[in-house]
Amino acid sequence: MSVTFAQGFSAAGVAAGISAVEGKKDLALVVNNGPLDAAAGVFTSNRFCAAPVQWSRNIVSDGHAKAVILNSGGANACTGKPGYEQSKATAEKVAGLIGAKAEDVAVCSTGLIGELLPLDNVLSGADKAFETLADTAEAGADASHAIMTTDTKPKTVELEGSNGFRIGGMVKGSGMIAPQLATMLCVITTDAVVTAGQLQAALNAGVEMSFNRIDVDGCMSTNDTVLLLASGASGIEPEPDEFNELVAKATASLARQIIGDGEGASHDIRVKVTGATTEEAALACGRAVAASNLLKCAISGNDPNWGRIVSSLGTVPSDVAPYDSEKVTVDVNGVRICENGGAGRDRSEVDMTPREVHIDIDLNAGEAEATVWTDDLTHEYVHINADYES
Amino acid sequence: MSVTFAQGFSAAGVAAGISAVEGKKDLALVVNNGPLDAAAGVFTSNRFCAAPVQWSRNIVSDGHAKAVILNSGGANACTGKPGYEQSKATAEKVAGLIGAKAEDVAVCSTGLIGELLPLDNVLSGADKAFETLADTAEAGADASHAIMTTDTKPKTVELEGSNGFRIGGMVKGSGMIAPQLATMLCVITTDAVVTAGQLQAALNAGVEMSFNRIDVDGCMSTNDTVLLLASGASGIEPEPDEFNELVAKATASLARQIIGDGEGASHDIRVKVTGATTEEAALACGRAVAASNLLKCAISGNDPNWGRIVSSLGTVPSDVAPYDSEKVTVDVNGVRICENGGAGRDRSEVDMTPREVHIDIDLNAGEAEATVWTDDLTHEYVHINADYES
Repeated sequence: MSVTFAQGFSAAGVAAGISAVEGKKDLALVVNNGPLDAAAGVFTSNRFCAAPVQWSRNIVSDGHAKAVILNSGGANACTGKPGYEQSKATAEKVAGLIGAKAEDVAVCSTGLIGELLPLDNVLSGADKAFETLADTAEAGADASHAIMTTDTKPKTVELEGSNGFRIGGMVKGSGMIAPQLATMLCVITTDAVVTAGQLQAALNAGVEMSFNRIDVDGCMSTNDTVLLLASGASGIEPEPDEFNELVAKATASLARQIIGDGEGASHDIRVKVTGATTEEAALACGRAVAASNLLKCAISGNDPNWGRIVSSLGTVPSDVAPYDSEKVTVDVNGVRICENGGAGRDRSEVDMTPREVHIDIDLNAGEAEATVWTDDLTHEYVHINADYES
Repeated sequence: MSVTFAQGFSAAGVAAGISAVEGKKDLALVVNNGPLDAAAGVFTSNRFCAAPVQWSRNIVSDGHAKAVILNSGGANACTGKPGYEQSKATAEKVAGLIGAKAEDVAVCSTGLIGELLPLDNVLSGADKAFETLADTAEAGADASHAIMTTDTKPKTVELEGSNGFRIGGMVKGSGMIAPQLATMLCVITTDAVVTAGQLQAALNAGVEMSFNRIDVDGCMSTNDTVLLLASGASGIEPEPDEFNELVAKATASLARQIIGDGEGASHDIRVKVTGATTEEAALACGRAVAASNLLKCAISGNDPNWGRIVSSLGTVPSDVAPYDSEKVTVDVNGVRICENGGAGRDRSEVDMTPREVHIDIDLNAGEAEATVWTDDLTHEYVHINADYES
């Protein structure tokens, strides 16, 4: 389903010969058939942002987009002016096909940094994708497959509001995932009747609580792009609160799926920090814990090593997160293995067999809280990233 | 040799039954026989600092120490008041043996966080160490072995000033190594006639340029301790500049040895950033690159992946390190594989077979520079930290 779950959108995913993997679907096209063409976007803050990011950030800034073309198999990042010309030519090609302006077409790329794309393949692939455009569940699924790189499965979401408007979405992302902004390409569609301003506000809020709170490997990408497109095809004007909530639910679902498919991961780790003086303090503590290679290795070895949790917590400056180290408690999967900053119940009581590991940290310093997600660090992660050129 | 290279110091390293590894030397004693007992220290800034750190930071603050007792096999961290009492009891024991006050004895521990030490073994081990104290090269070597945990080899340094004063030192550290302060226990001795103030200034400067510029895994320890002790036994008052320089040389050598023995490492990576507007900017860029798991995996796979270098560089905010991404160059082992922020010479030209990998980044924005060291991220690192409880 993915992006075609919302009315007014058609999609396609085709093998265009961009990826080094023979026959892999590597080009996706999503077209907004209207009547609206409202759009919002959030992009990587990496200073080496890729050509498609430069292009798309610019064209979405007016609140309108009629289509998105996305490729795996090459990031078109650090490719200078020739790379930018490629993104522009790709947008022009799609614009010609759908009868729009190049400035109505967003472009996303993912893959190896530092190399230009095989542009002829991209352009002929666009023809092929245009020919197979459909508003079917299958077409949406094809698109979600075409954007995968080290992802082991497509990641999609379908949600329906109380009065029938719909949100659909797809994301790719598996490694190079860290706040701010997990590394990924994400397209979310809705058939609600909403303005570009509403879209951008809902997207900003949703991204902040989802993609900005996951961390697979602490590495920020050059290509991160999240787009939210509205067709208005349902004719339904949603309650603003419900719309925002549903967008947040969509981004949360997609972010959670990224963690569930983190490169080489054997555990999905939820770090929840409560009892903080402010949400920022809770977030800083959660991120410090989620970023610990030592902890992530311990979890992969099924060791609920609270020493590595508190030692990470101890790196957060006290002006950022005031707390008393002797009042901190840590529960792993419901067992309080650290009490008052020291040993609590025996770590052998913790059942580490579930895929999902819950680390609950209570700073006992206030009322604020925050949750971040990460993955464990496994042999497989090293294998993927030592042996796969990306 | 290590700490006994300087005159006026005796040392011992014995198996006291603290470590879980049967028969492993796990207790070291270093005694300053004077005539001076000047001392300086630098300690972890982790807010969950261990009991021995709390003890030693306090007793060294007056600029005096006559002995240091160090154990592997247990960190005595997050152990509350009982842990502090253990550190104190250990200092009292040594003080009784050497005829000093407990406040003259520093205590260092390394190993698993969250458990008390087997105090009886520590105290009886102190007797044994005291009996075998000697100022020989062998005794110094024994001490350097006794502090090892996942270290695969002892790390020592011996340096002589132009007029004959000497500096000796030993360090342990292999994982949980990140600025500020690499995770480690370090004792440096000198027979120069210097004041505690001179010692502290020299140590601060040395640590800043060495232990604070290495990063094995981004994880800061609860137990980091660096001590510098002066006996004055050579009777030589060194030129202050030469003394500072030699201390810096000692800390640099020991820090470099830690990187050379990083957990599971197959490459030692030197990241040198030049052309920065300030040293702080260069350091921020160097640290961002050195912290990239993706890059560290690539290097372990002998892939000089400049995309992962610049994408890390791109995460440093522009107010911290102003530079133009299109003017950045990156050389790996002397081959300019990134030119003007894009592809340069082919990565296949880079010889990745040497253990030492040189990443030279020129921001082309100013005259300042900084160098940091890290290790690659290997299967073996994950193995050590998934399967070893520490």
